[in-house]
Amino acid sequence: VEYDGTDFCGFQFQPQARTVAGELERVLARIFGREIKVTAAGRTDAGVHAAGQVVSFDAGGNVPLEKLPIALNASLPPDLTVREAASAGETFSARFDALERYYVYAVLNRRTPSAVLRRFVHHEYRALDDGRMRAAARELCGKHDFSSFCGVPPENGTMVRTLREVEIERRGELVLFRFAGESFLHRMVRISVGTLLEIGSGRRSATIGETLAARDRRAAGLTAPPAGLYLAGVRYADFCSLPPDWWKMADN
Amino acid sequence: VEYDGTDFCGFQFQPQARTVAGELERVLARIFGREIKVTAAGRTDAGVHAAGQVVSFDAGGNVPLEKLPIALNASLPPDLTVREAASAGETFSARFDALERYYVYAVLNRRTPSAVLRRFVHHEYRALDDGRMRAAARELCGKHDFSSFCGVPPENGTMVRTLREVEIERRGELVLFRFAGESFLHRMVRISVGTLLEIGSGRRSATIGETLAARDRRAAGLTAPPAGLYLAGVRYADFCSLPPDWWKMADN
Repeated sequence: VEYDGTDFCGFQFQPQARTVAGELERVLARIFGREIKVTAAGRTDAGVHAAGQVVSFDAGGNVPLEKLPIALNASLPPDLTVREAASAGETFSARFDALERYYVYAVLNRRTPSAVLRRFVHHEYRALDDGRMRAAARELCGKHDFSSFCGVPPENGTMVRTLREVEIERRGELVLFRFAGESFLHRMVRISVGTLLEIGSGRRSATIGETLAARDRRAAGLTAPPAGLYLAGVRYADFCSLPPDWWKMADN
Repeated sequence: VEYDGTDFCGFQFQPQARTVAGELERVLARIFGREIKVTAAGRTDAGVHAAGQVVSFDAGGNVPLEKLPIALNASLPPDLTVREAASAGETFSARFDALERYYVYAVLNRRTPSAVLRRFVHHEYRALDDGRMRAAARELCGKHDFSSFCGVPPENGTMVRTLREVEIERRGELVLFRFAGESFLHRMVRISVGTLLEIGSGRRSATIGETLAARDRRAAGLTAPPAGLYLAGVRYADFCSLPPDWWKMADN
């Protein structure tokens, strides 16, 4: 599933708000003639986009898989589109069976904001030192207690996560931060980017090691705005929703 | 000047419509305290975007050039931004002194539409043969009477134009058509792309040579929708508004 998150109050269903789950469930109910609940690989916040979100639901019985994306897209709003449908085992959960999640955070690094990209990048007018940000990103990778980089802690469970990779790619005025990891804490990517931007613009003296060690949200940087963030894709045992040319593009 | 053309009725001023010129002139009048008329390198149609539009106006007297983009952006709507301001000779016209204009037309070539890119690409779900489109694009290049590729003919003057280059670059699902030429007829880029798409999807038998020879708008293909089109930049004797990495990106 792909969406422009600008005009959604996030993925998770809320009775009085426009949400991705709410729109999907409304259209699925119409197609299948009964109530359907969806589960997402990543419960994105308000304003966050997705290129390769994966959603599972119990359709109960035979489904014309080939026609499902076209039927859904005909009824969904234009800022929410379904790219593909596939059948999975009865116990499959888009959330709990995900092996790795891929996020991209896009920063436009120039003096003036961009009219064309305004919904899809965070504008940082300060000069950024890519080398310093890359060194800090390397420190962030690995298995750590990410309490300092967590918005709302999970209800029960550990704050330890393994961040497999943070790649920083510059394409002229655009800086792309690519994150790969099995799972992420609430706002972990946006707080990480906010902290890396403070390091890159020379506004921060604490190292990533010190920030991690503090285990306190107040030790890290500001949460970067949602517009720059994309859930790029999700990997499962036998399927990956990441666009096929995603890593290749990163190599350019 | 950069803009997201989706919610503009084109560049040219219209008394009752939201236009790029209208918004610029409104804000310039407020800053300079008098009526100001702007001239653009490319008078883009409704829905067409610009990354490197160039606009000239007579500011009369001393202008704080450094502060002008920031002052303008503070008052302009978010879908219209000024990137840079520079002084030019008294006789300078953004329109008549342009030596070359660069347009990009973006096509998303996959089965389903894209929620994220919906304002900025034309969705073509049919498979496209890049080789056939490139061969046709080569035929289109050069000095020709482009009557078949013109929407509204110029009031007086020739239909002969020199199309210096048409480059077709594929990046996965995205196909970028890049046009370079001194000047273009009304809708020339969109009619050209519409015709190339018909050739690429096997829906058209007439060659570009035959279509040019007809000198009749009805001989060419449908006008491709405005959302895919960008005025990428304009070259002058001593200045080019094209992003510096534009050609480099094309080489990837």
